[in-house]
Amino acid sequence: MRRSIATVSLSGTLPEKLEAIAAARFDGVEIFEPDLTGFPGRPRDIRDMAADLGLTIELFQPFRNAEGLGPAAFQRTLHRLERKLDLMEELGAPLMLVCSNVEPDAIDDDGLAAEQLRAMAERAGARGIRLGYEALAWGTHVSTFDHAWRLVERADHPHLGLILDSFHTLALPHDWSGIADLPGERIFFVQLADAPRLDMATLMLSRHHRCLPGQGELNVGGFTEAVLRAGYTGPLSLEIFNDALRSAPTRQTAKDGMRSLLHVEEQVRRVEAARRILSDGVAETKSIATAPRRVELFDPPTPARLDGVAFVEFAVNHAAQAKLADELKRLGFRRLGRHRSKDVDLYGMGDIRFVLNAEPHSTAHSYYLLHGASVCAIAYEVDDPLRAVGRAEAFGCPRFEGRVGPNELSLPGIRSIGGELVYFTRRRADGSIDFETDFLLDDGGAAQPDAAHRIDHIAQVLPEGALDAAILFHRAVLDLEPEPVVVLADPFGLVRSRAISDQRRRVRFPLNIASGRNTSAARSVSTYLGAGVHHIALETSDLFAAAERLRATGVAILPIPANYYDDLAARFDLDEDLLATMTRLNILYDRQGDGEFFQLYTQPFEGRFFFELVERRGGYDQYGAANASIRMAASSQLGAHDTLVG
Amino acid sequence: MRRSIATVSLSGTLPEKLEAIAAARFDGVEIFEPDLTGFPGRPRDIRDMAADLGLTIELFQPFRNAEGLGPAAFQRTLHRLERKLDLMEELGAPLMLVCSNVEPDAIDDDGLAAEQLRAMAERAGARGIRLGYEALAWGTHVSTFDHAWRLVERADHPHLGLILDSFHTLALPHDWSGIADLPGERIFFVQLADAPRLDMATLMLSRHHRCLPGQGELNVGGFTEAVLRAGYTGPLSLEIFNDALRSAPTRQTAKDGMRSLLHVEEQVRRVEAARRILSDGVAETKSIATAPRRVELFDPPTPARLDGVAFVEFAVNHAAQAKLADELKRLGFRRLGRHRSKDVDLYGMGDIRFVLNAEPHSTAHSYYLLHGASVCAIAYEVDDPLRAVGRAEAFGCPRFEGRVGPNELSLPGIRSIGGELVYFTRRRADGSIDFETDFLLDDGGAAQPDAAHRIDHIAQVLPEGALDAAILFHRAVLDLEPEPVVVLADPFGLVRSRAISDQRRRVRFPLNIASGRNTSAARSVSTYLGAGVHHIALETSDLFAAAERLRATGVAILPIPANYYDDLAARFDLDEDLLATMTRLNILYDRQGDGEFFQLYTQPFEGRFFFELVERRGGYDQYGAANASIRMAASSQLGAHDTLVG
Repeated sequence: MRRSIATVSLSGTLPEKLEAIAAARFDGVEIFEPDLTGFPGRPRDIRDMAADLGLTIELFQPFRNAEGLGPAAFQRTLHRLERKLDLMEELGAPLMLVCSNVEPDAIDDDGLAAEQLRAMAERAGARGIRLGYEALAWGTHVSTFDHAWRLVERADHPHLGLILDSFHTLALPHDWSGIADLPGERIFFVQLADAPRLDMATLMLSRHHRCLPGQGELNVGGFTEAVLRAGYTGPLSLEIFNDALRSAPTRQTAKDGMRSLLHVEEQVRRVEAARRILSDGVAETKSIATAPRRVELFDPPTPARLDGVAFVEFAVNHAAQAKLADELKRLGFRRLGRHRSKDVDLYGMGDIRFVLNAEPHSTAHSYYLLHGASVCAIAYEVDDPLRAVGRAEAFGCPRFEGRVGPNELSLPGIRSIGGELVYFTRRRADGSIDFETDFLLDDGGAAQPDAAHRIDHIAQVLPEGALDAAILFHRAVLDLEPEPVVVLADPFGLVRSRAISDQRRRVRFPLNIASGRNTSAARSVSTYLGAGVHHIALETSDLFAAAERLRATGVAILPIPANYYDDLAARFDLDEDLLATMTRLNILYDRQGDGEFFQLYTQPFEGRFFFELVERRGGYDQYGAANASIRMAASSQLGAHDTLVG
Repeated sequence: MRRSIATVSLSGTLPEKLEAIAAARFDGVEIFEPDLTGFPGRPRDIRDMAADLGLTIELFQPFRNAEGLGPAAFQRTLHRLERKLDLMEELGAPLMLVCSNVEPDAIDDDGLAAEQLRAMAERAGARGIRLGYEALAWGTHVSTFDHAWRLVERADHPHLGLILDSFHTLALPHDWSGIADLPGERIFFVQLADAPRLDMATLMLSRHHRCLPGQGELNVGGFTEAVLRAGYTGPLSLEIFNDALRSAPTRQTAKDGMRSLLHVEEQVRRVEAARRILSDGVAETKSIATAPRRVELFDPPTPARLDGVAFVEFAVNHAAQAKLADELKRLGFRRLGRHRSKDVDLYGMGDIRFVLNAEPHSTAHSYYLLHGASVCAIAYEVDDPLRAVGRAEAFGCPRFEGRVGPNELSLPGIRSIGGELVYFTRRRADGSIDFETDFLLDDGGAAQPDAAHRIDHIAQVLPEGALDAAILFHRAVLDLEPEPVVVLADPFGLVRSRAISDQRRRVRFPLNIASGRNTSAARSVSTYLGAGVHHIALETSDLFAAAERLRATGVAILPIPANYYDDLAARFDLDEDLLATMTRLNILYDRQGDGEFFQLYTQPFEGRFFFELVERRGGYDQYGAANASIRMAASSQLGAHDTLVG
């Protein structure tokens, strides 16, 4: 596929945008007119710049409110059109986007509109320029792709074709299955954008909340597959109007945009494969199964099978290493071993592995200097680490090579978009995880029953505006899927939270964005420097026993207000003894259908991250969002208390 | 009036909220249950705290999904109700807000709902507690105040009354004129909130975009007048769900909230006065003109008549003073005089007066140290400066007393919400402005024709989240009215702009909020420290002549891209010579009906603020928003160029 992006999708001046687009290896670009109007050079300068960068100028846009006009107004349109065709000749743009009229006084007459489109196409054709007509979802009379197509068909001019846009098509409750039946050669251009499903007017959603495909909730993959089935062979082009992207770093947006297009292409492959299965033996008029596709789609290594989090690595110095080791021991962890050549300790409990890295001059050390004691890497247990890294690289993630001592294992790893490291490791035939070979293992020690046996979820805090990019990264690279957005109320601001997880729930990451600077989430991590792990939830099969053990070993537990338990008593029919025990042990409760959830929190380690212990019963599949406000209120209280006692 | 606020309207912990509410001199408070649930003490601690602070606990809220239930579900509601009545007894809250059921499976049966409300009122009454029933605008079956009233009337229990909320009433397209006909003693409580008119679902608007009365577009004054006409004598209570306020400084929100309630009360007086005029000689069933009102409304000094901006004061040091003086002279200003005792110069052109304050150890000096060369004060010409200050003080603005030398005038002034000074001054019988007596005036000098004669508008940049408070301040204190919001695209982010002005257009302030940190607006002022004047537009009667003069004197004019003029040629039927002259002089153009607008910009002074010259023809009444993107793109280009040349 040729890959393109509209300049409106990125922040910056037009030259900055073009450079970033080229650096992210797009083939082409749509020039959004206001970007050109504000550029202090001439259209030919942009033509030259794009050529130097190896970018094709695919399209010039938008030309508005052009059809369905009275005679005088249409004369003014033709005057305006000629001026813009002059510009396009100088720019070297072969195609103009003409969008359906949105003026309230547009004339509702398909014959008139088609005639005017034809007259315009005649003018454009005389210059060797083509026009693509696009239905805006809020067009006064023309708001659907099929209505736009009827006008194009009726106008019947070789220089007039259709432009399809996934947002305008998918945002309306309008059947789009007919797209595959369109004649592909009459589709002149295809724009892609995703969006969340928000309960607001389509115009507002489009202008401010579009997002990159894979970040929202529209079926962009299905739409694109239909377009290709129709026989379209032109570029796929991102056109994103999004408030956050308008002020986001230009190069990062371009990189994310490329990852998004690659993700769409893979989705198309999946839709095709599904269609092949369903159509087995069924005759289809236009089938991807019978007609060879005429474009090449991105074909990355398939996702490795994710079996869980193999280990979490903490960047520490010596003091923090000792302190965190003490905290972990109180939680029931044992020291499993020490690294052969580095100042790194391994702690474990059940299947949970924590690496405490205090090695000087290491990547972890740099991370420690920037962020303090914090999680600097996460390792996944997968069936094929090399395939996992290959896939990540195919999606534009740089491979990471750490320092490796003689006879030590080089863990395949990448840098995630926030700068953190992600490793891939696998379980060997003897049940051990391969990274453990680098550790001189301690002898067992008195094995007490484990308080917890696996990592349930790892909650992260991201800087404002970074959620969409993180969702796309996890979705494309790790094949995780996002869960619904929830909004949590901290005493000092709202926290938007969206978890991303695999189908088998082996890996769950609630990703949080704090809207204020004083929320407990924002205070606990360096949100201005990068993403940060906020808490790690450990799953236990008996939270009450575990809580008693934690009391005995002196782990500082987050105190939960008594009012919370009065409210629980009002909302749920809970046994009085159980409620009394929960009150004593600071255990919170949630219910979902027949599922029940019990959770408790430790107090933050150095005010930065904390641990959670959870017990899931009866298929409970959430994270206790109903209790998050209580946790944040209790945590902010703790901060106040901390200040009081110095 | 008793004045109250719901704790959900503010950020912080419950004790912080109560302290801020008391400090802003509210009489009472609504306790929002989650605030109490997250508080690590008991309800009685809050009762004691409120009593110590002199606050009445007016209401406990919300109690949800209580009516229209099947028998088993209603039994659970009664169980929940009893627990919450226990809590309210301990809290000392006399009234509970019960809001209409929003569950999809609520039963649509007024008789059942009324019966269940009556049963609940019976339980509450046994404890001496009253229930207020409120229709949520998105209630499944009950969504309007009159429907809620029919249920309350039908339930017919002395402990059950109606709660009215301006948001739920005004956000729907539902006739609310019947409010005045309700029996006032059956209205148990009144909540006030405003909102912008945004094209989104009412639920989303309510949860995230409510604002303080006077900040939005709902007729809260008319609503409140109707409530009082009905005979309601209870508190007016703010209930604001707003994302920005959830992370805003608690005390500032409380102060703004009080100002908002005072503004509403004055609006009620105005509605009453208008009704008195209209009802002169007309018999009304319930008339404010015949029935004495039973509550006292806030009665501030009436607004002074605003005749324009008398002067703008710049904080400078000696170097900046000389540099700015040079810039002003090139613009056509003359030095009019020097302050009798301070290091302060006065410059003027036409009716425009600029004060350049380099006095050490002054307020201006502190401002200079914080913000660099910048506008530190604005003085208004009014008919009665003391009344203007008296009104501002009544609305909670602290009076400012500067250092005054012997025989010098003490200008009445206040501190605005951003910390800037606002002075009030008046024109004397001889035509001079009174503040000029403090200056030793220079002899005239060669008077050339003025390039500009008055200040057209002063554009300011506010920190994110501060727009609503600024709108309310200007509306309440200075009797200005907001114009519609426009969204402008800077290459590095969106800029939301809302102008506020007086009816006679003597004073116009476009207020801007930049969503990114790199927009030209955000870069030019210290948005993290406080508000800042971004540019000052001077009105001229012949911009072309003025532009030629500026060329001659060497003022650096913002260069406008040639592409802009090509676009003008496409959009408007402009004379070619005119267009060529505009291109040469960097003059921008806009049209609105028959009105025309010509404008040009100077390059920023020390990268911070700049001047604009404007010519309005034929009643043009805007600010050239269509050109703002071009100005911002050109300005960002300038920044890049500045960097290149060092």
